[in-house]
Amino acid sequence: MKIEVLNTGSELLLGQVLNTHLGYISEKLLPLGLRIDRQATLPDGPAIRDALEESLSRADVIFLTGGLGPTSDDLTRDILADFFQIPLDFHADIHEQILAYFANRKLTPPDSVRVQALVPRGAVVLTNDFGTAPGLYLHREGKHVFCLPGPPKELRPMFENQVLPAIRGLVPDVIALQQKIWKVLGLGESMVQEMVEKQLRVFPGMEIGYCARPGEVDLRLISSSTTDLAAAEQIVRETLGSSIYAENGQSMEEVVVKLASSKRQTIATAESCTGGLVAHRLTNIPGASDVFLRGWVTYSDQSKIDELGVEQLTLRTHGAVSKETAAEMAGGALRHSRADIALSLTGIAGPGGGSAEKRVGLVYLGLARLVAGQVTVDVIEKHFGQPREIFKHMAAQHGLDLIRRALLK
Amino acid sequence: MKIEVLNTGSELLLGQVLNTHLGYISEKLLPLGLRIDRQATLPDGPAIRDALEESLSRADVIFLTGGLGPTSDDLTRDILADFFQIPLDFHADIHEQILAYFANRKLTPPDSVRVQALVPRGAVVLTNDFGTAPGLYLHREGKHVFCLPGPPKELRPMFENQVLPAIRGLVPDVIALQQKIWKVLGLGESMVQEMVEKQLRVFPGMEIGYCARPGEVDLRLISSSTTDLAAAEQIVRETLGSSIYAENGQSMEEVVVKLASSKRQTIATAESCTGGLVAHRLTNIPGASDVFLRGWVTYSDQSKIDELGVEQLTLRTHGAVSKETAAEMAGGALRHSRADIALSLTGIAGPGGGSAEKRVGLVYLGLARLVAGQVTVDVIEKHFGQPREIFKHMAAQHGLDLIRRALLK
Repeated sequence: MKIEVLNTGSELLLGQVLNTHLGYISEKLLPLGLRIDRQATLPDGPAIRDALEESLSRADVIFLTGGLGPTSDDLTRDILADFFQIPLDFHADIHEQILAYFANRKLTPPDSVRVQALVPRGAVVLTNDFGTAPGLYLHREGKHVFCLPGPPKELRPMFENQVLPAIRGLVPDVIALQQKIWKVLGLGESMVQEMVEKQLRVFPGMEIGYCARPGEVDLRLISSSTTDLAAAEQIVRETLGSSIYAENGQSMEEVVVKLASSKRQTIATAESCTGGLVAHRLTNIPGASDVFLRGWVTYSDQSKIDELGVEQLTLRTHGAVSKETAAEMAGGALRHSRADIALSLTGIAGPGGGSAEKRVGLVYLGLARLVAGQVTVDVIEKHFGQPREIFKHMAAQHGLDLIRRALLK
Repeated sequence: MKIEVLNTGSELLLGQVLNTHLGYISEKLLPLGLRIDRQATLPDGPAIRDALEESLSRADVIFLTGGLGPTSDDLTRDILADFFQIPLDFHADIHEQILAYFANRKLTPPDSVRVQALVPRGAVVLTNDFGTAPGLYLHREGKHVFCLPGPPKELRPMFENQVLPAIRGLVPDVIALQQKIWKVLGLGESMVQEMVEKQLRVFPGMEIGYCARPGEVDLRLISSSTTDLAAAEQIVRETLGSSIYAENGQSMEEVVVKLASSKRQTIATAESCTGGLVAHRLTNIPGASDVFLRGWVTYSDQSKIDELGVEQLTLRTHGAVSKETAAEMAGGALRHSRADIALSLTGIAGPGGGSAEKRVGLVYLGLARLVAGQVTVDVIEKHFGQPREIFKHMAAQHGLDLIRRALLK
C-alpha cells in the first residue's frame, strides 16, 4: 500500500510554520507496517489539484492536510469536489455543530463558517472535537483520500480516533515493521557508524540509518524480524554503552524524570546561561512534580548572591562564568532546596559577552550531591557552538546528561 | 524562475526530525522576489532520482538537502553524477580539509569520510565551515541544482554566504515581493478575517492569508506595491489594535525584551505550571540580560514559601493554584528581585492534578508592579487546552503578553 502526504498552506512554504504533521502521521503508521513513501508541500491554490492528481497516480492512500478552514484561501473542499466531479452538499447538522462550538465559547460565528458545512457527496465526515472544520474521508476509484484540518491540536485527535481505525481496516494482514532508535550523546555520526555498522550488516534486510543532530547522533534500525532486532539491540548496547541516553521516542528529560522517580531522587536546578531551559524541559514531563522541586534562573550577579549564596569574592575573583561560581551555584541550590541532586550551569550564550580568555560558547556545569552527609560538587567545562538557541540546547542536554549519569550510579 | 526544494532523509519521513530547511530557505528567498513553488520529502534511496527528474521538468532551481554525509545511506553525490552522466572526481584538497576538521577536534577520522571528497565533474564546491560534508552547485542544461548538507547548523551559513550570492546573480532585475505578517493574540481566525478582509480586498493583487495557531492567528499580506502595503498596514493596525503583539518574524519574547529595554524596565518571573518556559523564552533573546534579572521555578509548595514568601495559610486555604497564591508569588518575586515588573503563573498543566472544582488547564497569571511606591498586583484567570506542551506554551504566551501590555502603558 503506497502512501503519500500532501501538506497545503502557503504559510508552510513561506517559513512561518514548521510542518509537524508529517512526523506525527508517520509515527502513527509505522506500527501498522506502513511507511510514507513521499510527501509534498503545496501553496494554497490550484497547485493542490495537480499534486493530488500526481499522488493519486502513484499512491493508494493520500493524507491531505489544511485548507478546510472558513477563510478565502481554504480550497480543499472545492478542489476535491471538482477533481472527482461530485457536488458539494450543505449539511445542516454540521452547521449546527459549528454554531454550537462558537456558542460554547461565547463567540459570534461569522457567516463564512457556513462553507465548513459543505461536504463532497459520498465523503465520510470526520468529527472535529477541537475546532470547527470537519475532516473528510473519500473512497473513490480504489483510492482513499483523507482531508484533515491544518492545526495539529485538531488533526491529531481526529487521526487517532477516526483515521487510524479506518486505515487498520485496510491492512488486515499486517507484517509490522519494527523500528528501534537509540540516541547517542558525545560521539560523531561517522564514529558511531564505524563502531556498529559492520556488526549490524549480518542481519539480512535490516535497514540502518543515522541522523546527526547538534552534538549527538540517532542510530535507527528497521526490520520485520523481532529476533534480529533483539540481537542487534544487544550489539548496539554493548558497543555504545552509556553513550546511549535514550531509545525510541524518549527524550533526555523523560529519561531523567523516569530514572529519578524510580530511584526516589529529587532534583533542583540553578541556571544562568540556559535561562530556565533545563527546568522547562524537566517540567514538560508529566509527573515531573514528583522529582523536580525547584529551580532558579539567576541571570544577574546579584541574584546568584541572593538566591544561591555565591560569594561576592568568587564573582569578583573568578567571574560569573567560572568553575568556582558553577560549584557555589550547585552547592547553594542543593542546600536551599534540600534536593538529592542539584545542577548548575553558567556560561556565555553569545552573541555578546565573550572575551579572548573566555570565548562565547564556554560553559561550566556543576553537579552537587550529598555524599556521606557532605555536599560534594563536580564541575566540568564544555564549549558549545552558536547560535544562541543551539548553545542553550546543547548546554541543557549535557546538564541533563550529568544528572542521568549521576542517577545511574 | 520556478524553485523547488527536495528534502531527503528517511528520518524526515519517519517522524524523528522536523523539516526546518523549508522555512529557512523560503525566508531567505522572499526578499529576492522568489518563492518556493513546491517542496517534497523523499526517503534515502532511489526515489530521490525520480523526484529530481520530476522537479527538473518543472523548475529552474532545485535545492536538494541531505544525503551528503559519510554514511551508507548518503546517496546524493552518486545520484547526481548518475543522473547527469558525469564522473565523480576525488578532490585531494577537500579530503585534506576534512582530515583537518577532525584533527582540530582531536578526533580520528573514519575511512568513510573519503567519499565526502568526491565531486561530480563541473560542480562548484561549497565550503562547509561547520561540518565535513561540502555542498555542491551544479549548473547544467539551464538548470541550477544546489546540494546542501542536512544539519541546519551546516546548511544555514553555507546558504547565506555561498548560495544566496549565486542566486542573486540569477535574478538581476528583481521585482521584490514584500510580505507583512501580524501576529494576533486573543481573536479567532474567522473573527480576524471578518474584521479586516473586506477592507483589504480593495488592493489589487494583494495576497491575504491567515494561519491559526493555538490561541492566536497570523495575518499575512503579500504585495509588490510598497504603497498598497503601507495603506493596508494602517488599516490592519487601526482595526486590530493592541491585539497585534508582533509583526513579521518577531516572537512575543523578542517584543517584550525590546520594549523593556527601550523603556529601561526590568523583569522577574515566578513560575510554577510553566516550569521555566517564560524565563527560557526571554533568555533566548540576545540582550535579555539587560532586562531579565532573575526567575524562580517554584514547583513544590515549600519552594513557594521559601523563595517567594507565599504564606502557608494561603496555600492551605486557597491552594497552590489560586488567585491568592498567584498574587503572593508575583508580589514576592517583585520584592526579592527589585525588578520593575514581576510575572507569576500557577496552574494545572495536566494530565493529572485536576479536580471537579479546578480543572486541568486552569491557570492564574499575576502581574506585580510598583505604583507610587506600593506593590500592586493584578491577577487574571485563564483556561488553556491540552496537551501539556500546548498548555505551557499558551500560559507562557499570555504571561508574556501581560508584561507587554504593562510595558505599553
